[in-house]
Amino acid sequence: MTQLEQAQKGVLTPEMKIVAEDEGLHPEDLLRDVAAGFTVIPANKLRPRNRQVGIGRNLKVKVNANIGTSSDQADIEVELAKLRAALDVGADTVMDLSTGGDIEACRRAVIADCPLPVGTVPIYQAAIETAARLGGIVMMTVDSIFEVIERQALDGVDFITVHSGLNLESLERLRKQGRLTDVVSRGGAFLITWMIYHQQENPLYEHYDRLLDLAGKYDLTLSLGDGLRPGCLADATDRAQIQELIVLGELAARAKAAGVQAMIEGPGHVPLDQIETNIRLQKSLCQGAPFYVLGPLVTDVAAGHDHIACAIGGALAGMYGADFLCYVTPAEHLRLPTPADVREGVIAAKIAAHAADLAKGNQRALERDAQMARARKNLDWERQIDLALDPVKASAYHRESPSAEEGVCTMCGKYCAIKLVREYLKK
Amino acid sequence: MTQLEQAQKGVLTPEMKIVAEDEGLHPEDLLRDVAAGFTVIPANKLRPRNRQVGIGRNLKVKVNANIGTSSDQADIEVELAKLRAALDVGADTVMDLSTGGDIEACRRAVIADCPLPVGTVPIYQAAIETAARLGGIVMMTVDSIFEVIERQALDGVDFITVHSGLNLESLERLRKQGRLTDVVSRGGAFLITWMIYHQQENPLYEHYDRLLDLAGKYDLTLSLGDGLRPGCLADATDRAQIQELIVLGELAARAKAAGVQAMIEGPGHVPLDQIETNIRLQKSLCQGAPFYVLGPLVTDVAAGHDHIACAIGGALAGMYGADFLCYVTPAEHLRLPTPADVREGVIAAKIAAHAADLAKGNQRALERDAQMARARKNLDWERQIDLALDPVKASAYHRESPSAEEGVCTMCGKYCAIKLVREYLKK
Repeated sequence: MTQLEQAQKGVLTPEMKIVAEDEGLHPEDLLRDVAAGFTVIPANKLRPRNRQVGIGRNLKVKVNANIGTSSDQADIEVELAKLRAALDVGADTVMDLSTGGDIEACRRAVIADCPLPVGTVPIYQAAIETAARLGGIVMMTVDSIFEVIERQALDGVDFITVHSGLNLESLERLRKQGRLTDVVSRGGAFLITWMIYHQQENPLYEHYDRLLDLAGKYDLTLSLGDGLRPGCLADATDRAQIQELIVLGELAARAKAAGVQAMIEGPGHVPLDQIETNIRLQKSLCQGAPFYVLGPLVTDVAAGHDHIACAIGGALAGMYGADFLCYVTPAEHLRLPTPADVREGVIAAKIAAHAADLAKGNQRALERDAQMARARKNLDWERQIDLALDPVKASAYHRESPSAEEGVCTMCGKYCAIKLVREYLKK
Repeated sequence: MTQLEQAQKGVLTPEMKIVAEDEGLHPEDLLRDVAAGFTVIPANKLRPRNRQVGIGRNLKVKVNANIGTSSDQADIEVELAKLRAALDVGADTVMDLSTGGDIEACRRAVIADCPLPVGTVPIYQAAIETAARLGGIVMMTVDSIFEVIERQALDGVDFITVHSGLNLESLERLRKQGRLTDVVSRGGAFLITWMIYHQQENPLYEHYDRLLDLAGKYDLTLSLGDGLRPGCLADATDRAQIQELIVLGELAARAKAAGVQAMIEGPGHVPLDQIETNIRLQKSLCQGAPFYVLGPLVTDVAAGHDHIACAIGGALAGMYGADFLCYVTPAEHLRLPTPADVREGVIAAKIAAHAADLAKGNQRALERDAQMARARKNLDWERQIDLALDPVKASAYHRESPSAEEGVCTMCGKYCAIKLVREYLKK
């Protein structure tokens, strides 16, 4: 049985207990949210883990780091270094999006080294293997796609992106829409290529029941992908995007009815003033299913610093109810990220997630910030470093620049406001 | 006459013309906003400049970079390098907050090299000179404070922070409040020290009319400082902060009546969910005066990455109506920033300001992003680099990692979604 099926039967699983403990929740509250489809716990039955991650209602906002090879860079050791970088700075999940080299070996290595949920986008491997073997991605068959999904499930993958909402109806809406950047999702692009070539429905939509059977067998959590996510601000919240979201909502309902855990993927590039609408719309159309957003990026022109554009959008999305933030690195739109880029990306997304937790009144998050405030008041630098989201950088910055004055930093030196005021206000 | 006095008389100044042209506004609309006190154009009469910067209603959100020495690091050449870094990446104004070494020489060097408005916090120099000469900052006199302000005005400073709202009433509210971090403003700390020692009213409040006379003489724009800004999330939007804001609102009204340009400074550390309230409250209490926010930082625990916490808060603040964002660098809370930190800080704040402009529907901002979207669609890398807020980093990232495939980047290599879909959607 899946986590969802057990929750629906009122069974509290070991995974739920770990998540409840980790979040400081009553296990029964968590169970109710899992049963309702408001929360998922991606946990492939074939890969027991000590650490479990819940994504959804009343939980801390989670952060995913995408790693993986491309046709240009396919060194598994580099991917494992990215994995370590992501884990070091607190990513909650990792997706291996490899599209180059030995995709299978890379995935297995990542899964072997990752104590957290691992996600993939199986259509990548299905398309690329087919292209290598048969000369074109359009040679994929329904069976070959499902065969790859099952192979990945057997490896222990915990959640998979499936762009099942990108059906002929959504595609027609896209045509009528007239976008600036059409489609920027790789999985979406593979499927559209196939659909147009064969003039047939998306296999992941048409054979969605088969997908549900397979997912249920392994408790593979479905991350219902947004192949039509906007690739620029001008395309945000358009009819194509919302059409696909409506279909995703229907598919989430079918997943829940089948006992399969599901979450919804969301944009993308979205101006700041449309983020609230996007989150509320998803929650409504998808009946409270967890929302997994890529960004959103609040401007198109931050290349080199897109992790910051993403942190802005992610924080706001999280405050309004997005449950899961996919990071973006400084390399976005420019190149495949390095381990250092991964580190920067995760930290930026963690700041966004934490800011959202604070805004939502998460008690543990508020207490951490209050402890930092006390450490600042006490000029307790060791404690300040410990409490920082990135103690390594905070410590390096502080150590590199010692003050001549005791207990302060070089920003204000002997004119430290906290030091000055402390004695006077006490009088 | 000041810009405000001229606007009140219906005179369109050369400075207004430059700002209107730069922003794509009708000069008459700008004049009306200046006359109403909704917009300021900091421009010391003694320092004519070719570039002018408007701050306020219907204008792009502006970014300030703080530079300046401290008692630990007081190399003027380093400060000039910070100035260049800030200008290189598009800061709109610079404040010299020097508190170490030859404060006067540093300010003059910065003003000489800066084609943009320069701001200062004169109480720093007043306090530190007095301490050096007489053994303690409490030895400042009303006259010595005003003498320093005038000296700075004569040097050509365009706007000054004056913590005039931190009066005995605000201070009493602070005592009753019971904060985690009391006071984190240096200027505020200097004044509180003086007020408590002498058991007297803040000279910048008591002698505010004298300040207005002096400011009017040079068209020094007053940046009414928030000495009681919260230093941690737990202290945000508390009675002490809002009491001071009420006083600042009164002082802004008095400035406007005296023909003196004024803006209001705001927090600080503010959780994401309180930002809208803070901005709307300032706009209401201060009758639409421009709002200059420091951050806001949306978490206390991002040390080493506070520029990101600041970008999140600044973007949201800008969307709700903050007019002017003071950057924060990665060095915040840890050390005096380096030129590299200044660069990072300005870029992060520029992303926030631009995101806010987009959210508010600024046509020029939207057009820039649409151009980027078109360049992406066309896989036109040169244009993408040109349009990036930081072309230097974007270009380096892209060049360092060439793809074997033509026209794409190493993120997706030959499986570039844009490339794949382009041909198929056309069919």
